[in-house]
Amino acid sequence: VAVEREANIANLPALYFEDLAVGQSASLIGTVSESDAIPFLDDMDNGEESLQEQFYSTEFYAARLRFGQYVTHGVYTASLINNVISTQLPGVGSVFLSQSFQYLAPVRIGDIITARVEIMELVYARRRVRLFCECLREGAPVLEGEAWIAVLSRSETLT
Amino acid sequence: VAVEREANIANLPALYFEDLAVGQSASLIGTVSESDAIPFLDDMDNGEESLQEQFYSTEFYAARLRFGQYVTHGVYTASLINNVISTQLPGVGSVFLSQSFQYLAPVRIGDIITARVEIMELVYARRRVRLFCECLREGAPVLEGEAWIAVLSRSETLT
Repeated sequence: VAVEREANIANLPALYFEDLAVGQSASLIGTVSESDAIPFLDDMDNGEESLQEQFYSTEFYAARLRFGQYVTHGVYTASLINNVISTQLPGVGSVFLSQSFQYLAPVRIGDIITARVEIMELVYARRRVRLFCECLREGAPVLEGEAWIAVLSRSETLT
Repeated sequence: VAVEREANIANLPALYFEDLAVGQSASLIGTVSESDAIPFLDDMDNGEESLQEQFYSTEFYAARLRFGQYVTHGVYTASLINNVISTQLPGVGSVFLSQSFQYLAPVRIGDIITARVEIMELVYARRRVRLFCECLREGAPVLEGEAWIAVLSRSETLT
């Protein structure tokens, strides 16, 4: 089991600054689930009645829903972006410096979202990477943003 | 059980735009756990050996650690901010429009983080709220940022 786990870790990319170039990109696809759409309610028992039905059954909360269906609050799409950065580009060991997100359109349970990041700029002096970040639903952007990430160089890894 | 669940939902604040004023603030406290620090590795079996030990045992990843201890990549502190916004101020039904985060200092497993948001600006024409967001560790900021949130007004709730 321990070997499998190590293999799991080792299979994740962890790029060094020298491996990066402007224009490199990475992406993943996620489907919005009920638990993605209604986070922070972990205490609630998810029994026979679905969380979504519960929301609809509560007039007060139903009135706060938009567009006729429960809408996620952006955290899900932002987490997909962080997932691509942390596990693909630059991968494990990325040090997040700053991020911005614009939530452009509502995201609903069942939506299929492609999260994509692309390297726009490399700052050699401080090993910093600027990534353009976007989430797309059927090709249309639902999130756009930017991230600054610090990445180790190969010469630093054995110090 | 259904009643308990509804009560759980109903206990969460869900403020209307009319309830808000510049200077209002809310906060919560969280402690960084191993699973917070090493997200996106859900496939891994968390058996006798801890995830943290596994990381240390892998020379390659150990070399990518900073400051002698595994450092979270900001997602945890950002999620605390989103939690305060979604469950306290303005609470359930908040529509996230945009966010920015600056990660000012590394956050480690075991750190106790206070996430705090404060209303800085209210735009009446479009029911929008600008929040200053910060995470503090022993009083020192580890995250600073801003969020624009749209909130329903009371007159909209019964349409």
